[in-house]
Amino acid sequence: MKIVITGGTGFIGLLLAQRLIERGTLTGSSGRPEPIDKIVLFDVARPPSLPKALDGRVEVVIGDVSDAKLLHSLVSGESVSVFHLASVVSAGAELDFDLALDVNLHGGLALFEATRALPRPARLVFTSSIAVFGGDRLPETVTDETKPTPKTTYGMTKAVLELLVTDYTRKGFFDGRGARLPTVIVRPGKPNKAASGFASGVFREPLAGIDYELPVGPEISMPVLGYRRVVEGLIHLHELAPGALGHDRTINFPSIAVKVGEMVESLKRVAGNRKIGAVTTVRDPAIEAICRTWPGKASAERAKALGFPTDSGIDPIVRAYIEDYVER
Amino acid sequence: MKIVITGGTGFIGLLLAQRLIERGTLTGSSGRPEPIDKIVLFDVARPPSLPKALDGRVEVVIGDVSDAKLLHSLVSGESVSVFHLASVVSAGAELDFDLALDVNLHGGLALFEATRALPRPARLVFTSSIAVFGGDRLPETVTDETKPTPKTTYGMTKAVLELLVTDYTRKGFFDGRGARLPTVIVRPGKPNKAASGFASGVFREPLAGIDYELPVGPEISMPVLGYRRVVEGLIHLHELAPGALGHDRTINFPSIAVKVGEMVESLKRVAGNRKIGAVTTVRDPAIEAICRTWPGKASAERAKALGFPTDSGIDPIVRAYIEDYVER
Repeated sequence: MKIVITGGTGFIGLLLAQRLIERGTLTGSSGRPEPIDKIVLFDVARPPSLPKALDGRVEVVIGDVSDAKLLHSLVSGESVSVFHLASVVSAGAELDFDLALDVNLHGGLALFEATRALPRPARLVFTSSIAVFGGDRLPETVTDETKPTPKTTYGMTKAVLELLVTDYTRKGFFDGRGARLPTVIVRPGKPNKAASGFASGVFREPLAGIDYELPVGPEISMPVLGYRRVVEGLIHLHELAPGALGHDRTINFPSIAVKVGEMVESLKRVAGNRKIGAVTTVRDPAIEAICRTWPGKASAERAKALGFPTDSGIDPIVRAYIEDYVER
Repeated sequence: MKIVITGGTGFIGLLLAQRLIERGTLTGSSGRPEPIDKIVLFDVARPPSLPKALDGRVEVVIGDVSDAKLLHSLVSGESVSVFHLASVVSAGAELDFDLALDVNLHGGLALFEATRALPRPARLVFTSSIAVFGGDRLPETVTDETKPTPKTTYGMTKAVLELLVTDYTRKGFFDGRGARLPTVIVRPGKPNKAASGFASGVFREPLAGIDYELPVGPEISMPVLGYRRVVEGLIHLHELAPGALGHDRTINFPSIAVKVGEMVESLKRVAGNRKIGAVTTVRDPAIEAICRTWPGKASAERAKALGFPTDSGIDPIVRAYIEDYVER
């Protein structure tokens, strides 16, 4: 089978491709595990290098996610699956509304149309975000049944894609499944334009020996999930039987609610004897304002009933990051 | 001021134009009543004739709601307000998904962009629908806080416009306000492609002396609102102070829950000595299936707190129809 990953050269895209290559098979619309012949990493920019674990089955294609012709040529073949991860992220979308609509809304629609054009309905997994929640009446804990009232353009476009994916699926155009992700940590490399970037930076920079200025206070609470669980979860979501999700195709992914102050404590605990950079707080009102529109806690009843993996606490997430990125 | 009404030659569009001409003024973004200089009825087809109550201030413009250039030329001037009523309706959208996306989603976006291009943020009222509700977990009564999980493409596109209007408003691009309408009765003239068309037909046809076959059983319950209250409500929504709605810009309009059997009883009661056509039931599984995805009851806490008009029962709605359309 062929797997197309949009946003494929991003952090999660590359990890997902590595895990799929390791596994060698994936269960798609045929309902049984099929050997993976090809993985297309579709993205706007070529990465300087690919992880060594990726082999000849992996191809990088550079292009615009709203390029309908290119999408039709990529999303083609006898057995295809799609992971749609490409997105303008939160702070980026607040800075450029038009770009967010182009990439997130029109790009998503172009991909959905390309997938709809396949001879048989394919599985399509896409990443939404708990940034769909917001509004004036947000409960302390958001659930699968909480009404999405996003307070960012990023969250708005994700909520729109959720509605579109459910309707394309209801119409039988493809078999869509959405993952409403919490903040994913710990991201390696350079910071991206997500307002939640500090939740990775507060671990990554000090562990690299660099001092770090937190843009938000220790009292801010946010639901987080380690990247290993995210990748496992996306594959689990893809492999669910078609009837498992019912009408509403997007579910809250499991998460743990962690305060920023607890992140700093975990860092010190897990770092042990390592020499780490100092963490100070220099509040950025713009970042704090975006964070305050997000829910502090998220439940995931549907995901739990469907056997999605979760983290047992913040320390194992930090340990995994050290294992995967600091000690290599 | 200039008022642009999309879907302007439709049933509600013409009634709204008549009411605005009668009033002579409307409170828009200036915050005070302004004389109405011009009303543009923008629609896809020219009506055979316009109501006599409409005068030289009213102009009909025929075009496509996704024609960006035309929209920019219409939505222009020093003081402009927009009522966006144009839409492919429920059964029509189920038959033609692509047309529904073109008109409802892309047409809506084109209008929002034209409104955004105005030198000052204008007021924009649009009609959503309780067809945004559906899904597997629908409560008996839907509220302003119920999660939209539409089971029709029509409802999906309306839910998407709600999210877009809230975000365009949050960004300050215009001052959007959405009316989540129940089934509006009694529609005169020919049936349209709405699956809920029987809720008008069951009154209109017998009162014209024509026998009527109901496509759904008497046990089906649906929230309805008389057209007089709808028009008053849309004007009230337009005139609300900008802060009245808060972040989430769309509210459930008031409605009364009526069973189809009760509609037939009301018809007989209000018709009195009139000679009316017979009503029989010939169930249409396709129409019944769509109706069953809709909520039986809808509450309207936010609208009630904001002083929106409502109907006291089904009989006054039928009496108003006789007054306005049968006895004229």
